[in-house]
Amino acid sequence: MLHNSAEGTLYLMPVWLGDHGGIEQLPPENITMASGIHLWFAENEKTARHMLRRMMPDIDLPGQEILRLDKDTTPQEVERLLDRMRGRNAGVISEAGMPGIADPGALVVRAAHRRRIKVQALTGPNSMMLALAASGLNGQRFNFHGYLPVKPPERKQAIKRIEQDALRTGAAQLFIETPYRNDALFADLIQTCAPGTELTLAIDITQPHGSTVTLPISEWAKEKPVLGKRPAVFILGRS
Amino acid sequence: MLHNSAEGTLYLMPVWLGDHGGIEQLPPENITMASGIHLWFAENEKTARHMLRRMMPDIDLPGQEILRLDKDTTPQEVERLLDRMRGRNAGVISEAGMPGIADPGALVVRAAHRRRIKVQALTGPNSMMLALAASGLNGQRFNFHGYLPVKPPERKQAIKRIEQDALRTGAAQLFIETPYRNDALFADLIQTCAPGTELTLAIDITQPHGSTVTLPISEWAKEKPVLGKRPAVFILGRS
Repeated sequence: MLHNSAEGTLYLMPVWLGDHGGIEQLPPENITMASGIHLWFAENEKTARHMLRRMMPDIDLPGQEILRLDKDTTPQEVERLLDRMRGRNAGVISEAGMPGIADPGALVVRAAHRRRIKVQALTGPNSMMLALAASGLNGQRFNFHGYLPVKPPERKQAIKRIEQDALRTGAAQLFIETPYRNDALFADLIQTCAPGTELTLAIDITQPHGSTVTLPISEWAKEKPVLGKRPAVFILGRS
Repeated sequence: MLHNSAEGTLYLMPVWLGDHGGIEQLPPENITMASGIHLWFAENEKTARHMLRRMMPDIDLPGQEILRLDKDTTPQEVERLLDRMRGRNAGVISEAGMPGIADPGALVVRAAHRRRIKVQALTGPNSMMLALAASGLNGQRFNFHGYLPVKPPERKQAIKRIEQDALRTGAAQLFIETPYRNDALFADLIQTCAPGTELTLAIDITQPHGSTVTLPISEWAKEKPVLGKRPAVFILGRS
């Protein structure tokens, strides 16, 4: 048997992105599922309560068990979280976006699979996918690199390697940066990449003032955008 | 100016996955956006009309202009599609999932960026992201390979190369297969990969009977699941 039928299901519950987001950006099915869950794993209990109340205004908050799951949670603690399910459903709720993708939620998901607990991810906003779709770059083949190295020489080397991979294979190359380093990364991209390489900047995606723009490096060099400290996804691609 | 203010916005409108899907799997914001659009680009006019009526039961269908956009649409035809916007908003509606990712929608998105038309992707189900989140494998770094080669020797070589990359870099490796070849691909994975390599099978994701399971190759070899002709996402990862 692939699943242990004595166990509940572990749901991955996404949350809207950014200050202007809200439940109108989540499928109604998610709210239906959430209303049947009373055990939650979350990075921060206070923000989890806030999210749950926004998702379900009539929720009985004292009746919700919210247990901490963050990057410092040990494997033993993860097992104790799953012990608390005892046949019930549970939810992993993120701080923003999809739990389990670049998120400590993955720890409990891995452990759930080892116990043959059923895991189900619910639809929600994911900045990488939204950026890739809106970029028009290659959605048949792509690589997500996470964060590039911080030090300038290593970062420029990484950019060169990633660009070469984009030009050779045609795969779209996604990466992110800590917002306060956005402008430095953009400057390195303009300096390092060939004029004809395509660069997508997806900034504040899903926000009313957000934008996703794909232009060749040569055009970006003329535009000189100021990204500031706004969440951004960068994509390099072949023209 | 990054966007041409005389132009409308091109929205990417995702659609639920599979027969059991429906508008409860789409954010209400998408329906609000859709109701302001009267020009659509779609692979198949008939299914697009069906999707739009399910999204908006009161829609004035004869008032919708639905223009064909598929993998055979030429660059000249793509330009003519954008010509029809003339300052209005337009929507790319997919057959299933997110337009622009492994989808002909990307053609018109690229052309829109060249004209500085604003492009916005709306949240919806994406089987790759849902599979990756529910896999518990590495969401900080991952590669999507699309379809592997069809011929057995080339396919086994591709599997070996992808597995080595997973073991060396730790990146999760996603790929898909035409459903009638699922079982053959699964057999090749069991034969080719090391016993300790993690394999995720995400089958019929978002469907009530769907499942996402991550196990080491050695465990899968004992389970011998029959995938049949159901849509599947495969992921290889390091344990």
